[in-house]
Amino acid sequence: MEKREQLYEGKAKKVFATDDRDLVIVSYKDDATALNGLKRGTIVGKGSVNNRMSNLLMQKLEEAGVPTHFVKELSDRETVVKKVTIVPLEVIVRNIAAGSMAKRLGLTEGMPLACTVFEICYKNDALGDPMINDTHAIATGFATREQLDTIYGLAGRVNDFLKDYLAKAELKLVDFKLEFGVDSEGNLILADEISPDTCRLWDAKTGDHMDKDRFRRDMPDPEGAYVEVARRLL
Amino acid sequence: MEKREQLYEGKAKKVFATDDRDLVIVSYKDDATALNGLKRGTIVGKGSVNNRMSNLLMQKLEEAGVPTHFVKELSDRETVVKKVTIVPLEVIVRNIAAGSMAKRLGLTEGMPLACTVFEICYKNDALGDPMINDTHAIATGFATREQLDTIYGLAGRVNDFLKDYLAKAELKLVDFKLEFGVDSEGNLILADEISPDTCRLWDAKTGDHMDKDRFRRDMPDPEGAYVEVARRLL
Repeated sequence: MEKREQLYEGKAKKVFATDDRDLVIVSYKDDATALNGLKRGTIVGKGSVNNRMSNLLMQKLEEAGVPTHFVKELSDRETVVKKVTIVPLEVIVRNIAAGSMAKRLGLTEGMPLACTVFEICYKNDALGDPMINDTHAIATGFATREQLDTIYGLAGRVNDFLKDYLAKAELKLVDFKLEFGVDSEGNLILADEISPDTCRLWDAKTGDHMDKDRFRRDMPDPEGAYVEVARRLL
Repeated sequence: MEKREQLYEGKAKKVFATDDRDLVIVSYKDDATALNGLKRGTIVGKGSVNNRMSNLLMQKLEEAGVPTHFVKELSDRETVVKKVTIVPLEVIVRNIAAGSMAKRLGLTEGMPLACTVFEICYKNDALGDPMINDTHAIATGFATREQLDTIYGLAGRVNDFLKDYLAKAELKLVDFKLEFGVDSEGNLILADEISPDTCRLWDAKTGDHMDKDRFRRDMPDPEGAYVEVARRLL
């Protein structure tokens, strides 16, 4: 496979074309942003941890029957994935109240929830990725009812799998963000990444933050948290 | 029936106890607030229009099979209603993109929607009545799945009825806010009010704003809009 021109540079990843029109190469950066881009910095080694962790989990999810964009890891930072048309939604799954949900609803962070919470946000930086509901998504054409049903079904299965899998590494899965896309054959598949950038992970014993909250909240040693998550999982 | 002590004073209404523990008297004020209480003023005559319009529409909805809190109109401004425990949700039904939805999603006001949009917000002034979804409501105990199903069913029926009814008065029902409560017998019923304070109404021919947006947006003669709505309906 031949790596060709850069198609896109996001906050934490670059995407390159290949000689196969259905495949792209994702290259993970150490760049970190938070607060809708207002806070910027670097977490040395993050790109490698996120790439390898995401690839491991996507492969495990494939084995569990969840279709993903993963194709082949090329190096510590680079992976071949299926090219998809992204559904313009961020899908957030929450097992414990934390972050924006706790703040918006006046809940104490760490409060258990009576059921799993699923949120969808319209992916639009200029609008601040506003939270929406299913009727907004359908009324505006961001997604169809069928896509939403598939997405919620897959997101629930991803949560069930990840909660158990991460618990074995003594990590509590508080919440996480998924993105989905449609591949060249029209299948809705899991895309983007699953990493400490996109999951809130708390140490099962100490409750320590083992994720990007260490960067968002100016806590010490975010690098160490990524390294420790990698040590437990990879 | 005897009017007793004031139980509550809200932004646009006062509520008084009666000698019947299951009934209260609502008294409509001319006070207007907007922008989560930041803008305050008076729309002379508003209380009377809102009281009479809400009572008319609640009675018509009862005839159409929607249970409401309406019992008896006492005067231009005062009405006896069933005492309810309010479900802490604002239910917003939208037929056309406008207001906060248009702003949050970057839509042009007036854009038709591919389906009716239903939003729920957690009634909490200090938090700014944040928009939530069904899983938030259930996870935090604001409402049960059964209550939400009943609420959406009733809200849809209210929308179907009001759209047609208001169209006869050459008013386009853009969006509106409902509140529901549980009465002393455990029934979930429509409460609060249906008025130009809680509905966005556009003149069917001219598109003129015939509602509280005239106050919110510093447009001329909000009083005239309320009087004209009353003239067409009452």
